[in-house]
This record gives sequence, structure tokens and C-alpha cells, in this order.
Amino acid sequence: MENRTGEFEYIDWIRQTAKQNPFLPIGIGDDTAMLALQNGRQTLLAADMLMEGVHFTLEAVTPRQIGRKALAVNLSDIAAMAGHPRAALVSVAFPQNAAGSLPRKVHKGIEELADQFDVVIAGGDTNSWNGPLVINVAVIGEPAEHGPVLRSGARVGDWIFVTDRLGGSLAGKHFSFTPRVEEALQLAECVDLHAMIDISDGLAADLHHILEESEVGAEIDSAKIPISEAAFSLNDSLSPLQHALQDGEDFELLFTVSEVDGKRLVQQSPLNVSLTQIGNITRETGCFLVEETGRKTDLPALGWKHSL
Amino acid sequence: MENRTGEFEYIDWIRQTAKQNPFLPIGIGDDTAMLALQNGRQTLLAADMLMEGVHFTLEAVTPRQIGRKALAVNLSDIAAMAGHPRAALVSVAFPQNAAGSLPRKVHKGIEELADQFDVVIAGGDTNSWNGPLVINVAVIGEPAEHGPVLRSGARVGDWIFVTDRLGGSLAGKHFSFTPRVEEALQLAECVDLHAMIDISDGLAADLHHILEESEVGAEIDSAKIPISEAAFSLNDSLSPLQHALQDGEDFELLFTVSEVDGKRLVQQSPLNVSLTQIGNITRETGCFLVEETGRKTDLPALGWKHSL
Repeated sequence: MENRTGEFEYIDWIRQTAKQNPFLPIGIGDDTAMLALQNGRQTLLAADMLMEGVHFTLEAVTPRQIGRKALAVNLSDIAAMAGHPRAALVSVAFPQNAAGSLPRKVHKGIEELADQFDVVIAGGDTNSWNGPLVINVAVIGEPAEHGPVLRSGARVGDWIFVTDRLGGSLAGKHFSFTPRVEEALQLAECVDLHAMIDISDGLAADLHHILEESEVGAEIDSAKIPISEAAFSLNDSLSPLQHALQDGEDFELLFTVSEVDGKRLVQQSPLNVSLTQIGNITRETGCFLVEETGRKTDLPALGWKHSL
Repeated sequence: MENRTGEFEYIDWIRQTAKQNPFLPIGIGDDTAMLALQNGRQTLLAADMLMEGVHFTLEAVTPRQIGRKALAVNLSDIAAMAGHPRAALVSVAFPQNAAGSLPRKVHKGIEELADQFDVVIAGGDTNSWNGPLVINVAVIGEPAEHGPVLRSGARVGDWIFVTDRLGGSLAGKHFSFTPRVEEALQLAECVDLHAMIDISDGLAADLHHILEESEVGAEIDSAKIPISEAAFSLNDSLSPLQHALQDGEDFELLFTVSEVDGKRLVQQSPLNVSLTQIGNITRETGCFLVEETGRKTDLPALGWKHSL
């Protein structure tokens, strides 16, 4: 995995130089940007670049998996806004010495997922070079009727939920995950989603993104965190709970709703994946992990830090 | 310059597998795709990837020029549809060993051009790696009131025009060109643009794109072709005329209008750059160069061939 720390200063600088623009009501800093076109319509925009040797190796995964993931990470960003993904632009640099079937296999992976989510491949750019495989996918989406769900909407007293189970994604899920597009849209139909993000940097890190943008705090019940089997099967220096808290690329939804809506979600469990309340939004700023003993410890933004 | 021939089969395959989709009234094969969002609005989409060692070297041009060009080629594609560019998503892979100022300089080049054309940098993806510099820019635009101008609208009897002068772009213009966004919008106000393309592959090759999509032919008067000073200053095996016909990356507009509109353009010359009628659209298919002697020779699709 790459070390993204070095990009901080550069990204901060871009944010600072990004002028306040009436056509960009949601800019750099949420899961997607939202563009207000002059015709008054709102468009969600996201892009992600995957590079051989950084995000994948051709030895460890298939070209089809790589293509699929290049689109999937963007769909996950649109899901985090509870939006509808509509179209993708696919730009690729193929290695000249790669097998002739590589382009088709990569594209197949993209196409299958695009079909599954009714996303149109609207074009892009295809190149070959004496270098590693690079894929960039840009996705255009539309907010659902209720508008996009931002990171900044969490309110004091909100219940904090996650979909499915967390941790150990590197064992396989980070290439096979289902972007939670349908789940996010279903949730938006059932309840008033206050704040939402997809867990790409890790539960703790992404929770911090919500808290910072919403200017609130949180308490997380450590016993409630749903830990994946993959996190239990890893034999390393971290506990399964630590994996669930800090592993990146789970691509599950992390969101907050009012207590009333939270109770409804717990009773009805309207999704095909599990929904777990893991804690509450607090007025007191800071992020805390509450153990079963009652012991309360600081929960820092573990895991990956990146943005844009 | 890269040899793009190897991508043909792959691109053809993508086109074939790209299903007819009601949300994509203009798909792969024109300068940009046009996406019809479910809210009924039309969006223009383009993307282009520039790779170190293929499209530029860090020895030959400045990081600022590279950033500028990465956006400019996309603005030229929007111009070719007579559209308004609105927002850009910028994805970059920076070499780890590059000077610390490289990211800022690249971004500066993008930002300056974006400001000039009122384009919002809406986000993207920033990475670093042990590899060459790669930049992908995806641009979202809106068609002008009259709708987008396609390659497929040329009619028999149309006059064929180009903006400015052609050839020798590799001497410098391919990094410093002005995307003809304003010129295209001005033209669309003055006349009924039947077909348009930006000259990226070369005059002959791009004229062939219009002829193929419009299912017509053309005769070009060789004496009328406006040849740039750069094309005259090159001392190689090609004549200045040959350079004007086949050099890529001029990024000028090539378009057709009715004879009536053509005469108006010649009389009024409404742009700040020169407009030259270089020939006519014919019913007889094929593309011909007519010399001053009256000799008529076949004009093949010289120059770069690429698409998507």
C-alpha cells in the first residue's frame, strides 16, 4: 500500500487555491464534488486513478478484477452521497509488453460492473506505453431526489451506523466489494440520512472526516463494531478489532441518522446487508472508544489519510 | 510520438460492445460523448491522459506547460462540439523522485487555463509512485443553446473552413495552443454549423473523420490551405503543405457550413483568428486534393489515427 502522507501539503494547497465558486456547491473534501450546471441541474463528479505497483500487481489479481475495482471505487463515492451513478469515462495506459488480451480483460471487468449498475461507458482515452498499467475512471452521477448526503450533516444525538462487517479487506474484499449504491438509495428512501461517507480510509479515519466536517464528537462502543471473518483470520500484530477500526478499503457505508430513525433501522433492518449501530454523535468534540468495562479511550484517525 | 495503431482493434471492440443506450445519444466516436441525464439535461464528457515519455518529457517542456496541455486538449474537444466547458476532474500520478515543486507547477498550469475559461477544478485523485508522470483530465461541459455540433452533419455543397494556420505544431504550438472554445461559440452564434472537429490527428485525418461520419466526400484546394510559419521553417523531407495536411495537434477548428453561411463568414470574418475556406463537401465520396494546375489527387487520411 502506498504512503499518501506526502500528498497532504499539495492537497491542502489545492483546496486553498480552489476559489469559492457558485457552480461548485460541494467541492474538494467530500466523497464527490457536486457541480451545479448553468441549467440548474446538479451533477456528482468523482475520479480515481489506479496504478500498477501501487494499488495492484498483475501477479496478485486478474486484469478483470483491476478493471472492476477502477470503476467500483468511484461508484462507492457516488453511493456515499446517496446518488445515482450514470456514466463513466475510462482512461487507460496499457503496458506495451503486456499480453494482447490484457485490454479486453480490463475492459470486461469495467463493463460487467457498469452493466450491473446501469452505468454508461461514455468514452475516455486509450494509450499504450513502455510503462506500468494505469487506469483512471471518472464517474458522473445525479443526486437522488432528497439531494446529496454530505459528510457535514451529523447532529448531536445521532446514531452512528455501518453496513456489513469491517476489517481485513486486503485479504480479498478490496477487489470484490459491492459498491453500496443500492443500499444508500434504499436508506435514503427509509430515513433522513444526516451524514454519510464510504469507508475507504478505515472506520476511525473516515469517522473523523464526518466529525471534522460536522463539528461534533462521537463515542463508539467497541463491543458493537461488526468485525469481518477476514479480520479474525489475520495472524498479525493487530487484533481483529484494530483491523476493523483501521483497515482501509472496506467500502461499507458509515452514516448518521436521528435516534428515531436509528430505532426504525434497527427494528426494520431494511437492507440485504446487516446494519449495525456502533455509537452516537456527541456535543463534546473528540472521538472516543468505549470498552465494555466502561473505560473510555481516545480513538485517533487511524489508517490511511488521503483525500481529494 | 506514439504509434497508436495497436489500439485500433481494442477500440473497435469497445465500440461494438458499447450498447445502444438511450442516455448516450452521442457516444464513442465524436469529439466528446453527450450524456442525457434522467432529468433531461445534456452533458458533454471528454477525457484525455498524458503520459511522460509518450506525450511529453520533463526535459523538453515545463511542468506548467504539461498541466496546461492536459486540460487544453479536453477544452479543444468541448470546443469541437461548440460547447461550454464547465468543470474538470484532475487525476495525477507524480514521480516520487521528482522535485517537490513539480505538483504545484503542474497544477498551476491547469489552474491558469481553467481560470481563463471559467472551468471549475471539481476534484480528482492525487497519487505518487515510483513511475513516470501521468495526468488524466476529464472535462464536463454543456452544449450551447443550438445543441452540440457533430462530425456527422456535413451536407453536399457545404463550404469547408479551418481556423488560423496549420502545420508544424510540434515546434511549440502543441503545448501553447489556445483551445478554440470562444471561437466555436462565436461561430455557432453567427452561422448554422453543420459539422465540426478539432484538428488533433491532422487536417487530412480529421477531415476523413467528418466525411466518414457524414457519408459525403470533399475536394480541398491545395493553394487555399493556410500554412503556419512553423511548417515553413521545418527543414525535413516534407513540404510545408504536407506538414499542414498531416501534422497532428494543431487544435484548430475544421468545420462545414452552407454556401450562404460560408459567404457570410468570408465577408464578415467574425473571429479574432483567421478563417479560411479550404474546399467543399461533395456528393461523390472520397477525399481529393485539387492543385492549382487542376490536377486532382487522392488525399488519404494522413497523420495520426486514433480515437475514443
